[in-house]
Amino acid sequence: MSGPEITRIDQAVAAAADAANFWAESKAGLRIQLLNGLAEALEQHQVELIAIADEETGLGTVRLNGEVARTAFQLRGFADAVESGTPYAVVDDPAIAGAPPTGRPHLTRVRQALGPVAMFSASNFPFAFSVLGGDTASALAAGCPVVVKAHSGHPRLSRAVHEVALGVLAAQGLPAGLLGLVEGASRAAGVHLVQHPKIAAVAFTGSYQGGTALWTVANERARPIPFFGELGSINPLLALPEILEHDGEHLAKSLAASITLGCGQFCTSPGVIVLFKHPASEHFIEQFAAALQPLSTHRMLTPSMRRGFDDGIARLQLAPAARPLLQPHTDTDGPAPRLFEVDAQAFIEDAHLREEIFGPVAVVLKVTSVAQAIDVLHAIGGSLTATLWGFEQASDDNRALIRAARQVAGRVLFSGVPTGVAVTAAQQHGGPWPASTQPQSTSVGYAALERFLRPVALQDAPAWLLDE
Amino acid sequence: MSGPEITRIDQAVAAAADAANFWAESKAGLRIQLLNGLAEALEQHQVELIAIADEETGLGTVRLNGEVARTAFQLRGFADAVESGTPYAVVDDPAIAGAPPTGRPHLTRVRQALGPVAMFSASNFPFAFSVLGGDTASALAAGCPVVVKAHSGHPRLSRAVHEVALGVLAAQGLPAGLLGLVEGASRAAGVHLVQHPKIAAVAFTGSYQGGTALWTVANERARPIPFFGELGSINPLLALPEILEHDGEHLAKSLAASITLGCGQFCTSPGVIVLFKHPASEHFIEQFAAALQPLSTHRMLTPSMRRGFDDGIARLQLAPAARPLLQPHTDTDGPAPRLFEVDAQAFIEDAHLREEIFGPVAVVLKVTSVAQAIDVLHAIGGSLTATLWGFEQASDDNRALIRAARQVAGRVLFSGVPTGVAVTAAQQHGGPWPASTQPQSTSVGYAALERFLRPVALQDAPAWLLDE
Repeated sequence: MSGPEITRIDQAVAAAADAANFWAESKAGLRIQLLNGLAEALEQHQVELIAIADEETGLGTVRLNGEVARTAFQLRGFADAVESGTPYAVVDDPAIAGAPPTGRPHLTRVRQALGPVAMFSASNFPFAFSVLGGDTASALAAGCPVVVKAHSGHPRLSRAVHEVALGVLAAQGLPAGLLGLVEGASRAAGVHLVQHPKIAAVAFTGSYQGGTALWTVANERARPIPFFGELGSINPLLALPEILEHDGEHLAKSLAASITLGCGQFCTSPGVIVLFKHPASEHFIEQFAAALQPLSTHRMLTPSMRRGFDDGIARLQLAPAARPLLQPHTDTDGPAPRLFEVDAQAFIEDAHLREEIFGPVAVVLKVTSVAQAIDVLHAIGGSLTATLWGFEQASDDNRALIRAARQVAGRVLFSGVPTGVAVTAAQQHGGPWPASTQPQSTSVGYAALERFLRPVALQDAPAWLLDE
Repeated sequence: MSGPEITRIDQAVAAAADAANFWAESKAGLRIQLLNGLAEALEQHQVELIAIADEETGLGTVRLNGEVARTAFQLRGFADAVESGTPYAVVDDPAIAGAPPTGRPHLTRVRQALGPVAMFSASNFPFAFSVLGGDTASALAAGCPVVVKAHSGHPRLSRAVHEVALGVLAAQGLPAGLLGLVEGASRAAGVHLVQHPKIAAVAFTGSYQGGTALWTVANERARPIPFFGELGSINPLLALPEILEHDGEHLAKSLAASITLGCGQFCTSPGVIVLFKHPASEHFIEQFAAALQPLSTHRMLTPSMRRGFDDGIARLQLAPAARPLLQPHTDTDGPAPRLFEVDAQAFIEDAHLREEIFGPVAVVLKVTSVAQAIDVLHAIGGSLTATLWGFEQASDDNRALIRAARQVAGRVLFSGVPTGVAVTAAQQHGGPWPASTQPQSTSVGYAALERFLRPVALQDAPAWLLDE
């Protein structure tokens, strides 16, 4: 890491720290105005920003327009969350005279913004998980300045979006330090940012390796800080034979589309298809392979992601427990989709077979019992999503499978596919390790702003303070 | 660690894991009945339990009776929290037709109990932070079985309270695995418990060294789990000259009582008294020393705690920046209280001077400015409490000091002393590192049960499931 790089990081953090008290104590009106202003500015510059984004990521204008719409919607949604008073919520317990435990002082539980947040952009959502994405929106709504570590996969877009944001801050007379941008592809730059004593929390979306490395750095600080990392997920999907008998053709097509959407570069891409040994499952596998075979993909986000995908496929091709289910094929701009069958028991026993392969691939497991299906889910252990198809009827088997899905996932779907994450109050985008380093928090939906607030109990606070 | 010790831990965890699904899905009625039953049984056996507790801890029957009252109050309070529906709270977002981001599926955010909790008892609260203490009550209320690691400072009491609890479980027809007890003073026993794959979360109250060691173990698991640790706190108290002029005598006495209460063995004991250079402060120091000098203490909880106290005092006596403020004295059963003045700038610069000394001791700092007082608070960095005396008037200086106190503490008091922690909904017993490994959680008060629940979003859940 170069000296100028360190200096730029230190300057961005210092500017954020300088703005932190002002922003932590800012009234709702200012925050609402900023979040709505950022949404509007993003839309005003949509055409030129999407041109840059498409050049850098190859995700295509349809997807990118949708992503800008989501990002603006999300900024406005957090403005609404501020308007509804979430960051200013108070729990007030009046004093009760007498001896404890019944007697007590006056306690007022308020919410304290943590301070400057280091936010690591994701590669695969150049708008929605980047400079003005969900982490930034939720941190600003909570009252925290943000220092964005730009993703090296879309540096020009990051700079352009940051310029747009700086224009909004300037127009509203707000300090530029509320939203800093640092670059540098080196791991050392990220480490320096996480180690900075004035950084109060980290939000990270990315790879398991990169995320655990930075999480370790956060934990090794003299004063460890909260680290909200989304580190990967293989998103099991379990389908019962009955629904496959009735609706196999349609489900096969929607699953094939979900796996290849965005070249499979979604953290919620369904990577493991769990089926019961049954003729309907065999037929579905044929339908699914037939739906997947002709689909082509666009190029992957970065050359290193493509290498990671190719390495993962090579690993599966060499694994004795895996066999390919698609005919030989030719890559286009992106890799051709792949599908493997993996022995269910081997999957349960061998962690390597459960590693996420980022890209358009899924593995099919055939289980012989509900108990083995539950073992598969427990072996996965932590996942952003689990999808259950065919659970319209109550039964003990279904209850047991739903229970296992709830135990390992942050979101359990009973229809549709897990790609596409609605931004709502009820959303949960997290889950046990490695889906999230903080499985009790979410990085999508309005509960995401809770990550950047800490409760403080004020005991016998003077009236003037509570009035302010 | 012996083979039988490992076997007993494994058996206790297995029994907890066997009971976990049943308890996670139990209705409010069962949990309320259990928590209230435990409170009642504790009170029924109060006399004999306190006799054992007093023998083992030397805390005295007045204090111990108060602690049992608090522990029973707390169990009943968590029963009330269950009755009010907290563990079963749902956020429901109906489906909206149309394309995203506005269009969305039906999402129902529910709360999932994490599973078996390993709970490490504290030495200094043999009832309220032990077998049936706040962590156990909140975990059971959340729907999680508990495996208690008994504290080696009160092994007979731990067994006796556990026997009482087993009686309640048996009488109510509930599995004994809901509350397990493991013993063994060795560090290896604790490590084995935290490493156990079926343990889903850890609650710890104790020393910085022991806590960080187990926190590291939890983070080094193949699947890291939430670790809620309270690791220590030095609890600054800042008093303005005006209030000392008016009320110095009374405040000196209450502060001296707080520091010596329970032989200073409270995590909220005020360890750092910050005063402004001013004649009123000088006079207060005299009043305070005079109030402290004649007080005697009971014996400390364990010989190793006493050694820790003596080592800490020896360190201060050798520190060039510290000078004693009390005359030479004789220890009784417990150590005589100690008071030192420490140079404020040295305190800011030298982390060793800020280390917690568990026992009846405080250091006095004289600061020359509001800015230096703020630097003191920021140097402390994380504390369960900060106490501010004399803040009845609004002023920019007062606002700046309150802001700094809120930034470093989980509870900010404006009157009284920090020892004595009310069990209420608004309470916050946590704070930035090292006060808590999870500063956004609390280990006292009804929000404590949030620690053992994780949100799960159910997407398009079938009606039968939502009805159940």
